[in-house]
This record gives sequence, structure tokens and C-alpha cells, in this order.
Amino acid sequence: RCLRLGVTMAKSKFAYVRDFETDDTCLPHCWVVVRLDGRSFHRFAERHNFAKPNDKRALHLMTRCAQTVMEELEDIVLAYGQSDEYSFVFRRKSNWFKRRASKFMTLVASQFASSYVFYWPEYFEDQPLLYPPGFDGRVVVYPNNQTLKDYLSWRQVDCHINNLYNTVFWALVQQAGLTPVQAQERLKGTVAADKQEILFSEFNINYNNEPLMYKKGTVLIWQKVEEVTTKEVKLPAEIEGQKMKLSQVRARPLALHCDIIGDAFWKEHPEILEEDS
Amino acid sequence: RCLRLGVTMAKSKFAYVRDFETDDTCLPHCWVVVRLDGRSFHRFAERHNFAKPNDKRALHLMTRCAQTVMEELEDIVLAYGQSDEYSFVFRRKSNWFKRRASKFMTLVASQFASSYVFYWPEYFEDQPLLYPPGFDGRVVVYPNNQTLKDYLSWRQVDCHINNLYNTVFWALVQQAGLTPVQAQERLKGTVAADKQEILFSEFNINYNNEPLMYKKGTVLIWQKVEEVTTKEVKLPAEIEGQKMKLSQVRARPLALHCDIIGDAFWKEHPEILEEDS
Amino acid sequence: RCLRLGVTMAKSKFAYVRDFETDDTCLPHCWVVVRLDGRSFHRFAERHNFAKPNDKRALHLMTRCAQTVMEELEDIVLAYGQSDEYSFVFRRKSNWFKRRASKFMTLVASQFASSYVFYWPEYFEDQPLLYPPGFDGRVVVYPNNQTLKDYLSWRQVDCHINNLYNTVFWALVQQAGLTPVQAQERLKGTVAADKQEILFSEFNINYNNEPLMYKKGTVLIWQKVEEVTTKEVKLPAEIEGQKMKLSQVRARPLALHCDIIGDAFWKEHPEILEEDS
Amino acid sequence: RCLRLGVTMAKSKFAYVRDFETDDTCLPHCWVVVRLDGRSFHRFAERHNFAKPNDKRALHLMTRCAQTVMEELEDIVLAYGQSDEYSFVFRRKSNWFKRRASKFMTLVASQFASSYVFYWPEYFEDQPLLYPPGFDGRVVVYPNNQTLKDYLSWRQVDCHINNLYNTVFWALVQQAGLTPVQAQERLKGTVAADKQEILFSEFNINYNNEPLMYKKGTVLIWQKVEEVTTKEVKLPAEIEGQKMKLSQVRARPLALHCDIIGDAFWKEHPEILEEDS
Repeated sequence: RCLRLGVTMAKSKFAYVRDFETDDTCLPHCWVVVRLDGRSFHRFAERHNFAKPNDKRALHLMTRCAQTVMEELEDIVLAYGQSDEYSFVFRRKSNWFKRRASKFMTLVASQFASSYVFYWPEYFEDQPLLYPPGFDGRVVVYPNNQTLKDYLSWRQVDCHINNLYNTVFWALVQQAGLTPVQAQERLKGTVAADKQEILFSEFNINYNNEPLMYKKGTVLIWQKVEEVTTKEVKLPAEIEGQKMKLSQVRARPLALHCDIIGDAFWKEHPEILEEDS
Repeated sequence: RCLRLGVTMAKSKFAYVRDFETDDTCLPHCWVVVRLDGRSFHRFAERHNFAKPNDKRALHLMTRCAQTVMEELEDIVLAYGQSDEYSFVFRRKSNWFKRRASKFMTLVASQFASSYVFYWPEYFEDQPLLYPPGFDGRVVVYPNNQTLKDYLSWRQVDCHINNLYNTVFWALVQQAGLTPVQAQERLKGTVAADKQEILFSEFNINYNNEPLMYKKGTVLIWQKVEEVTTKEVKLPAEIEGQKMKLSQVRARPLALHCDIIGDAFWKEHPEILEEDS
Repeated sequence: RCLRLGVTMAKSKFAYVRDFETDDTCLPHCWVVVRLDGRSFHRFAERHNFAKPNDKRALHLMTRCAQTVMEELEDIVLAYGQSDEYSFVFRRKSNWFKRRASKFMTLVASQFASSYVFYWPEYFEDQPLLYPPGFDGRVVVYPNNQTLKDYLSWRQVDCHINNLYNTVFWALVQQAGLTPVQAQERLKGTVAADKQEILFSEFNINYNNEPLMYKKGTVLIWQKVEEVTTKEVKLPAEIEGQKMKLSQVRARPLALHCDIIGDAFWKEHPEILEEDS
Repeated sequence: RCLRLGVTMAKSKFAYVRDFETDDTCLPHCWVVVRLDGRSFHRFAERHNFAKPNDKRALHLMTRCAQTVMEELEDIVLAYGQSDEYSFVFRRKSNWFKRRASKFMTLVASQFASSYVFYWPEYFEDQPLLYPPGFDGRVVVYPNNQTLKDYLSWRQVDCHINNLYNTVFWALVQQAGLTPVQAQERLKGTVAADKQEILFSEFNINYNNEPLMYKKGTVLIWQKVEEVTTKEVKLPAEIEGQKMKLSQVRARPLALHCDIIGDAFWKEHPEILEEDS
């Protein structure tokens, strides 16, 4: 905050009201997770004609916002998203804003929300945004790697269960012509294998071949990438006015659609959970 | 959150991680205040060529966002804004989201931020938005009317002090040609009366005549307004196809630029602090 | 804490562990209530042959402990006790130990518990204390007079309901020879009037004539009392060696057994809830 | 709490006041530490003629109280005490009282305090207890073994530093006849080696030979012990009325005075920090 110059918080007889603020520091040495959820996104999806069961544009927009959050905020080592939710993991020893939970969650929520509107036109070319959406957030603290991994597994299992349900539900509605109520009725009591069987026998859909982004969600982790930029630069007279290609290695939040429940992912990226992170 | 159908949160062996969430209920029967502040708005103002010391467009955009927050969220009885900050007061007995502080602050922050980008073009016609801004938020709880009024007074005194400083600072820079460092030096140690005297004697500015919005900030309270909408309606054959004016009385968050430190404002609007609010 | 001399907390490389302490400041300007409950007092009462339904000695001992708490700790304006529980109300603007909840509740709990053992022999002359009892405590914050009074009313209603139940239950067991299970069965579904009727018609007990201490519990408030002490003092030769009576007016926590639900009590003692308390 | 029969908390119109209680659950899977400190124990030590720099009786009484706490409460795996303080470590996965911090700290504080008075005569035969002492407590949560061990190391380093200071301070006062102010002055700026040198050269005290209990404090851990009790038991007629020795293996909190900063202690007692504790 900084539209002010040379003046700190006014010190008046009213300043005692600051004492009513409470300390909400996150326990040190723990993983801090902020999870966002779209507010009333059922209605939002309806109003903006989201494809069912998954809208690729909407998912990519969510991920773009999450990448912006990772780039603009500090100390986020991993993000995981699915449907209308995204989780952000701050490194264990982060001391960003003195680990104040309110700062963490409001900065994530506001940066994500402003990015959502800002980048909307890039992903929804023919669908104007009708109104600005809201996102609710929360902070949860995990004391060790196991609980953090279990948290992420919980979200990925949730992704899987919901996506399987939605895939067969919408096949029943869109292809078999059932009403939503009938489809719901049809699926009552079915387990995962039943749903895969319906998909295969009635709609010739092999769930295993569904896109990974839908089945696994999206993991964002920092990866070194070589970026080439073209720049007009001041140069000695003989080559003046020429353009130069500059190559630079930068860390960027790249998107993966893979299993994060098993050990393989964590073994491949040991730096994420490193003791000093 | 609602891109899901008929499935509640997946119940897997990982679901125990929910137990790590902590309860952050606000003390009942107390005023809950959420305050937002623009993140790095000094840089944001520079990049977007905000007028100094006050940018009318930016202030109106802030207020538009605050109005959207009041209309979209529940139980906000009053908002007060100045510079790059806005405070929202939830009614004492609100039970919105069970009074969870995290819900209050993230929904305010995200709705405000998405609105900021959404409404930007209405207020900054010739100035494209270069990047999506962030806002940090906090929740503070006030147990009674006196402490709530003192909180708001604290913010309005802050507005006054900063605006007076900024007004004379930028006059020194823009009109008298001082460098920022020189202007700062000049103002060191001056009290309010000194600054008003500089404004008057050197720049012929009577601070009392400065716009109220700059000096007092903006108060938003609910006011009944008559809204007239024109609608094409199905009518009997003889007047078919005609348009009708419909008039409706609705409560809207209207902007005032007045003193809220003295008693007058509160006497004029006794419903705001009513016992049962 | 003070068995140390001239050394403050050791500053070693381990001192970072202090950062894991969390702030538990009570919201300013609110009433802070600490309530204690005897741990496993059913068993404790059995082992120490408490009279049923009320043991006068035990109740007086509890009150003696509560008085000690009020005298030894600071800023307690009122205490209310019944059965094996006691509530302590700290004044609204107390800044004792910076309003840290953990200090409030542990100092109350430990002072009460040590006093319980210390004063036991004064009240239980023929009954040795078999083991040291425990008390659990909690802190609750009330933002205004109404909620504080409602809290105390809640406890006094609880006292009344329990005492009426216990009085008739033990009459059925001790005088009518029912087993506890039979007595419980007999009382199932009865309302207050039924219980009073049983007491009156079967045991000739008019509940209204039961001792106020049992029906209303005990309220402790500060009252000025004149204390006369006899002291041997150094005096001029002619009256040397004589004893003198010294009279002194001091505030002491005195016990009342009265209704605190209605207005009368609070009107009679307006200083308790005074704005600046 | 249990002096009540068959009645749960009274449900009156006042029962809403329960909603003002806040949740203070300790983060799951973390070590919970309760530390107690004697209140105003400098004065308490004076009034009860504690030996300086260490009073053996007082230290043993403290340890006896801590043992009672460990026996009476649940899930305490280790305690560490020195001077007038004691820390209690609850096992990581304890779910005692749903991990509510207020229960943990008030039950420890009250049980410790009542035990202090109860066992006083066993340790202070010739010194009557003049008044019941208080103890303040706090709860701190540590997310992993390293931070827990560092916490305990912090307390043991504190013990060492204070004991060395006190030993030389009281030698200067008691043996060399300095006033407390002179002794303090003399020690200003000295480091550990200086103090040991003073002790050795001026008082012929080799600090290394001081009792371990003073230098290291007291660690309490559960150890299996064989307990032999003599009991009069109902037996067949031919041996009727005889007494029997019963031997039983029980876990008891035994006192050690050893280093807990290095690895040796933890390697010798790996069960304390076990994953599932």
C-alpha cells in the first residue's frame, strides 16, 4: 500500500483500535496451504455456457490465474487445481508477511480473482464475461511432508471421483437423453467400476482414455525454461539498429497433469519437499 | 462451489487432513470489519499514470468495486474508503458463513479485485490496464458501537492527514518545481496549520475548498432509491409491442463524502448501529 | 517467576523455539470469564463422603478458594459458583498479563487448586483429603453487559435445575428407599412443578424453603468491610507493651446467595458493570 | 465434572452464550508442550526459607508434583523441570480432550498446584506452608521432533546458565560477604569460563562436581518398574488371614538428571519420539 508519502499511519486518539487486531501467524516450520474455491460457480458456469462435464477454456484460465499467483506472490512451491478450485503450497520456512494467514489468503484470492477477469478474453474469445466472479479461500497448516502429501492426494482423489461421476452423468444426459434427475437416479449407489462400465458399454467411452487434465487435475511446479526474447539494443555503430536475440534461463510455473498420490512424482521432484524449503 | 453434481467431498483415507483446518469464527454479537489495501499501489499508480495527489477515476473505480462487494455479498451495512483502501462493516448479528473470518476476508478481497479489472475500462477509458492488481485484507472485530465508530474515525483522520500532506507535497513539486526530496524536507516538522498556510500563501489554494471526496473519503450506506427500467413486455393485443416503464424501490449502496467522526452522521442514520443489526 | 537473578531467558541457538508460541490475547474492552470445573468430582465426592444432594462443607470450601483467587489475582470483579464449578469475571478493561487467555486461566486454575488443598482441613475436620484434585478451565469472552449477564443467568438457571433434580432424586433414594436407577426412572419426563410436587406431597419438603445457597449458588462481589486487628505496637513509655486495636476499611470478596437473573441485583450494584470497569 | 445426575447442561434461553466459546484445538500430529512457571516464586522462596542457590526439598517437591501430573493426566510422554518451572510433553497423536489447549494447560496447572500443597509436608518437614502458591502455564505446539528437541534443549541450556550464575552469585554473597548488588556488579560481563574460574580460584568449587540435578535439571520418562505390594487377601481356609506379597510390573515416571541436548539420550530412549507416539 503506497499512495502515501512520508506519512505513516496517523497517530490519533483513535489509534487504540489497532489493538483489536489479532495475531494470525501460521505455526513456523509447517507447510501453509491456501485453497480457493469459486463462489456460486454452478450458476457462473451456466451463465457463461461452460461445456459439460469439463470446459477446457475454463480450466486453462484457472491455471493461468494460478501461474500469475505463483509469479506475483512469494514462496509458493506448488499449486494443484481441478474443477473450480486451486490449492497453493507455501514453502515450510517462508517468512513472507511474517506468515500471517490473512495476508496469505487475501493476496492469493485477490490476485487470482483479478487475473481471472484480466485473462478471460484470452480463453473465452466468443463469450463475454457477464459479471466479476468471487472466490472464497482458507488457510490450512500441515506440520510435515506426509500430511501435506495426503492433503494433495485428498484433492486429487476428489478430482477423480467427481470427474468420473460428471463424465457418465453428462453422457447420460447429453447422449442418452435422460433428465438430470433421471441420470442422478441411475447413478445412485454405483461404484467406480459400475460407472466405467456404463461409459464403456453404453457410450463406447473408455474412461482411461479421457484427457489427463480432467482425470488428474493440474499440478504447477517451478521449472527452469530457456526464454528467448528479441530486443532492439544500443550497439556499436557498425551493427547499430539491429535486433538481438537474448536467451535467458528462468524458472516458470509449468503445468503437469500427472499422479501425485504415488511416490513417483515426489521422487522425480525431490526439491519440492526439501527440508529447507 | 458447484461444478459438482450429487457428490459431496470425496471420503477417502486422506480425508483426515480436514481436521487440520482451524475454526476462525468471529466473536458473536460484534461488528466484523474487513479492510482491504492495494498491494504495491505506489508502483501501480505510476504505471497507470494516476493523477497526483488524487486520481478521480481511481477513487470512483474503488467505490464502484466496493458497491459491487456490498451488492454481491451479504450483511454489509457500511463501507468506508479512501486512497487505495476500503473497509467493510458486517452487521453485528450476521451469521453469514457462520461468521468465519477467512470466508469474510477472501470473498471481499476476491470480489473487489475481480470487480476492479471488470470495471476498469468504464473509469479509465484511455488507459489500458497493464496487469491485474492484488489487494491484501484483514478482519478486525469490534465489540461495541463506540469502538466501531472509533475505528472509522481512525480511518477518516488518516484520510485527512494524508490528503493534506499529499496536496501540499504535490503543489510543491508540480507547481513550485521542488524535487520530491526537497518537498519532503520542506514539510518535515510542519503541523496541519503550517501546511494549510503554505497552500494558501504560496499556491493560493484554500484547503477548505478542496473536494470533499478527497478530504473525507467515501462512505457507502444503503439507501432506498426508485429505479425506473424500460422493458418490453407481453401485453394485450391492442397495445402489443409497446414498451413499459417499470418503477421499483430498491436499496442501493450510495456514496457520501461527509464527516463520520462527529455525532451528526450517526444521528441521521440511526439504523446503521441499531441493536439488532 | 523468579528464582533467577540478573539473568533473563537464555539466548541460545535454541531460542527460536519461542516463535512457536501463539498470541492468545483476549479481545479488548470485553468481559473475560474463566470458568473452572472439578475434574472427576463424582468420584471425588464419593471418596470423601460428600453429603447428598449438597455438602455444605464442600460448597464453603469452594467459595473460600474463589475468594483466595479474587484476593491473589487482579481485576476480578465478580465470581459465581455452584456445585463443583466457579466462574470468574475480569473487568472489561483489565490489562493484566496483557489479557493473555492462557495466563488468566492457568493462574485461576492453579490458585484455586492449591487453595483447595490448603484450606481443606478448615472445612473437612474429620475427613482427610485422600488425593489432590484437578480442575479444568476455559476462557470465554463476552462483548457487552447483556451477554455477560446472560452467561451468569445461564449458570444460575443450571444451578436451579440441577439442585431441584438432585434434591428430589436423593429424597427418593435416601428417604423412600428407591435405587438410583428407580429414582432416575421416576423422574424421567417430569418438569419443575412435578418435582416440587413430589417433594411436597411425598417428603413434606417445601422446595422454596431450601437454603438459598443451594438454590441460587454463591455470588462473590467486592464489599468494603471494617476490619479490626489487634496489634502489639511500639508506643511511648507510659503505655508501653499495650495492645492496640486497629480498624481499617478494606474491600473483601463477600458471598451472597441471591438472584442474579433479574435486574434488582445489577441495580443494587451498578459499579460492577460500570463502563470503565 | 459430575456432581450432577441425569441432567445435562441446562437448556434455557441463555444457552446461546455457549456460542461465544472459541475452539482452541492444537494442530493435529504435533507435539503439545505445556510449561508451568511458579508465580512470584522469588517471594515464595524467601518466605519459606529456601536454601540458595538450590533448595533440594523444593526441587524434589516439584518433581513429585510433575510425577503426579503424569500419572493422573493422559498421554504425557516426557516432562522436564528446573528451578520453578516444569514442561510437559503430550504425545503427538494424543486426542485427549480433543486436543483442546485450554483443557491441557488448566488440568496440568491445577493438578500440579494441588499436588504442591498436598505433598509439601513430605518434603518440608519443619517448614509449614504459609499460603497456597500459583503457577502460570502456556501451551506451545511443535510440528516435529527437531523443534521439540530444540525446545527441551533451550530449557536445559537455560538451566545451566542460571545455575552457574546462581552458584557463583551466592558464593560471593554467602562466603565472600558481598552484598547482592556487589555480587551482581562483579559478575557483569563475565562469561561461563570466568564464572567457573571465580568458583574454583576463590571458593575452591569445581563446578563440574556440582550435583547433576542442579546442572541438568530433571527429566521424567516412563519406565517399567517391578512393584511389590503386601496385601491381605481372601484365601482358602487353610492359609486364611495370611498376607501375600504381590509383584506387578508397572510403568512409572522416573527421574533422570542427564543431558538431553545431545543425541545419546534420544538414542537410548527411541520410543519417546516414535512416529506413532
